[in-house]
Amino acid sequence: MQRSYLGLRIPEGMHDLLPEELALQERLERNVLDLFRRWSYQKVLTTTLEFGACVQPNSDVEDQIYKFFDRKGHILALRPELTTPIARLVSTRMRGQELPLRLCYSADVFRNSLVRNREFRQAGVELVGSNAGLADAEIIALAVETIKSLGVKDFQINLGHMGIFLGLMKEAGISEELQAKLEDFLARKDMVGVEILVRQSNLAPDFQQILLRLPHLNGREEILDEVLSWSRSQDIREAVEGLRQVYRYLADFGVQKYIALDLGILRGFSYYTGVIFEGYLPGVGFPVIEGGRYDLLYADFGYPLAATGFALHLGSILGQFPLTSLENADVFVYGRDPQAVINKSQEFRSQGKRVEMSLGELSKEAIQELAAKKKIPVLCKV
Amino acid sequence: MQRSYLGLRIPEGMHDLLPEELALQERLERNVLDLFRRWSYQKVLTTTLEFGACVQPNSDVEDQIYKFFDRKGHILALRPELTTPIARLVSTRMRGQELPLRLCYSADVFRNSLVRNREFRQAGVELVGSNAGLADAEIIALAVETIKSLGVKDFQINLGHMGIFLGLMKEAGISEELQAKLEDFLARKDMVGVEILVRQSNLAPDFQQILLRLPHLNGREEILDEVLSWSRSQDIREAVEGLRQVYRYLADFGVQKYIALDLGILRGFSYYTGVIFEGYLPGVGFPVIEGGRYDLLYADFGYPLAATGFALHLGSILGQFPLTSLENADVFVYGRDPQAVINKSQEFRSQGKRVEMSLGELSKEAIQELAAKKKIPVLCKV
Repeated sequence: MQRSYLGLRIPEGMHDLLPEELALQERLERNVLDLFRRWSYQKVLTTTLEFGACVQPNSDVEDQIYKFFDRKGHILALRPELTTPIARLVSTRMRGQELPLRLCYSADVFRNSLVRNREFRQAGVELVGSNAGLADAEIIALAVETIKSLGVKDFQINLGHMGIFLGLMKEAGISEELQAKLEDFLARKDMVGVEILVRQSNLAPDFQQILLRLPHLNGREEILDEVLSWSRSQDIREAVEGLRQVYRYLADFGVQKYIALDLGILRGFSYYTGVIFEGYLPGVGFPVIEGGRYDLLYADFGYPLAATGFALHLGSILGQFPLTSLENADVFVYGRDPQAVINKSQEFRSQGKRVEMSLGELSKEAIQELAAKKKIPVLCKV
Repeated sequence: MQRSYLGLRIPEGMHDLLPEELALQERLERNVLDLFRRWSYQKVLTTTLEFGACVQPNSDVEDQIYKFFDRKGHILALRPELTTPIARLVSTRMRGQELPLRLCYSADVFRNSLVRNREFRQAGVELVGSNAGLADAEIIALAVETIKSLGVKDFQINLGHMGIFLGLMKEAGISEELQAKLEDFLARKDMVGVEILVRQSNLAPDFQQILLRLPHLNGREEILDEVLSWSRSQDIREAVEGLRQVYRYLADFGVQKYIALDLGILRGFSYYTGVIFEGYLPGVGFPVIEGGRYDLLYADFGYPLAATGFALHLGSILGQFPLTSLENADVFVYGRDPQAVINKSQEFRSQGKRVEMSLGELSKEAIQELAAKKKIPVLCKV
C-alpha cells in the first residue's frame, strides 16, 4: 500500500544509521567494550520493554519515558537507562552470585523529550556489592579510560558528592519542598533560580552565603578544606573525606589530571547517594558520561547492595568523530555465463576474499564505472 | 521506592540475557555478520520506533505490532521486522545510490503475540535493485551459508514461488475473499481448513484436485513438470521456469543438497511476490530463516525497485546451542595497600592483561575461594 507522507519519515529525534555512520558507532562501541572486558566487566542485555513499575519510580527522567499499556492494562516502558533494569536483573536471576559483580552493557535507550536524541546507544558499567571508595575510584578511572578509548585527549570529568549538599540541607533543617526545588535548580545549573530561591528563604545569612557559594566550588583539594571550615556536621565530614579519598586514589590510577572537584554537580530526583561525576568533551553542551554511587536502589528491589557505575552517551556524540570510509569488496566478479560467475565468486569466497558478484550482463564500461564508484580494487572477468 | 511484584518482573515473552547467554548470541551474530560482510553486504540500523504508517500497511504481522500514540497523536510502532524500515531508508536517505544495493542488519524485533519470543534478535540481508534470478539464488545460497555459519550441519531450506499459487487463482477466476482465506490457511499449513474450503467452493472438480495437491508438492525438479502439466497459463509458466532457474543456480553455488522445492509454502498477507523460502532446523517447530522476493514494496515508498532478502530469527534459536563458559580475568590483584593494588592492576592492564582488582582487604582463604569461583587462574598479592 502506497505510504503516506508520515510513512516515509521517522519519529522526531530518532536517527537511522547509514553504513558509514553505523560503522563509526560500532568502532567506538568496540573500543569501549574491549576496555570494559579488560577491566573484567561482563556484558549483559536487558529487555527493551520494561514494566513501568520497574523503571519509573525513581528515574530522574520520569517525564521522558515512553509509556503505553499492554493488552492486560499494565504500563510498559521503553528503557530510559540501564542501571535500574540491571538492578532488577541482579536482584532476581543473578541473586546470590559472588560479589562484587562487575557488569557492563551497550544498548539503545529512549527519552521522549530530548530534542535531538530520543533513541541513542548507551554503553556503561555497574560495580555492584561494594561500598569501598576504591570501587568509586575504579569506576571513575574506567570512565577516564573510556573517553580516552574513543581517541579523545582533551576532556574533563567533574567530581562531586551528593552527601555534601544533603548534609548541608540536614544541618540547616531546610523543608523538603525547598530542598527539592534547590536540588532541581542546582542539577540544571540554573544559578538565577538558585539565587532567587535562597534570597527569598528565611535561612540564616551565612547559610545563604554557603548555598550560593556551593555551585562555584570547583578545583582541587583546597575546596574540600573550605567546606570543612563551614561545618562540623558528621555527615558532611564523612562525605568530604570520602570524596578526598577517591580523589587521591585517582592519582594512584594515574588519571587525576582529568578530574576537577566540583561541588556544584547534583542530580535532581535521581538515585545517586554518594560520589557523582560528569564527563565533558570540548564543544559538547551536555555531559557525555554520567555516573556515581547509588547505594539505595538495590534495596528497592529487595536486595540491599551498594553500587556504583556510569553510562557513556555514545550515540549522542557520533557527530564529534569523522566518518571513515567503509571497507569495500576485494574483487568484483562478472561475465556472460552466470554459472562461471557463481563458481568464481564461490572460489574467491572460499579463499576468504570479500566478493561482489555481478547479477546481470553489463558492458565493460559499465562494470568499470560501477567498480570505481564502489571502490572495488580488482575486477575479475570470467 | 520499593518495587511492587510487577516491578521485579519483565513483560511476558521477553528475556534478559545473562553474560553467558549474551556471549552465545554475540558469538553467533558475529559469525553471521562476518559472512554477510564477505558477501559484500553493508550493515545499517534503523530506528526501533517507526511511525505506524511505515510498518503497518502490508506487514504480515500486523496484529502483532506493539503500537501506541506519541504526544502528537501519531501512532508509533516497535519494528516487527526490518525489511520495511530498510525500504523506507533506501527510498529516502539512500535514494540514488549505485544499484544493486546489498544491505544487512542485526537488531531486535518486537511481536506482541508470539508466546515465547516477543522481543528477539533478527539478522538479515536485503538485495535491492535487481530482478535477476541470480539475485534470488545469491540470497538463498547466502541463507544456506548463514545456517552453516552457526555450526549447524543438518537443516533444510524449502523453496517455493508465490507466482504459482497466484497464477492458479487468476486462471480459476477465484474471488478475492476465497483467495485470501486459502492463502491464509495454506500459509498456516492448516490442511483441514484448506480441504473444507475447497470442497465447499464451486470450483471445477479437477481444479479442486490441483488445489488440494499443491501443499503436498515437494521434492526436486519433477514437481515443476507436474505443475506445467496442469496449466498453460503464461504467469504460471514464468513462475515455474523462474523457480527452476534459481534452483539450478543453487547447484552452481554448491548448496542444492540443502534445498527442497516445496510449492506448499506461502506467506499470507505478506509483501512477497516471487521466489520464497523457509529454513528449518531439526527439532525446531518454526522456520528459523524466512525470505524471498518482494518486488512491489519499494513502489509503496515511491521508489520502484525489485528486491529480495531474508531474515534469520537468531534470538529465537539460542536454546539450540550449548552455552560456553565465559572468558575470565587473567589475574586477580589483592593486598593491604590500595595504592599498591591500583598500581599493580594498572601495570597488568598496560600489558594487555584482563585484571580483576580486589576492593577490600580479604583473608587469603577468602581470596582463594573467590578466585576459584570466578575461575581466575593467577593470584597476585602486592
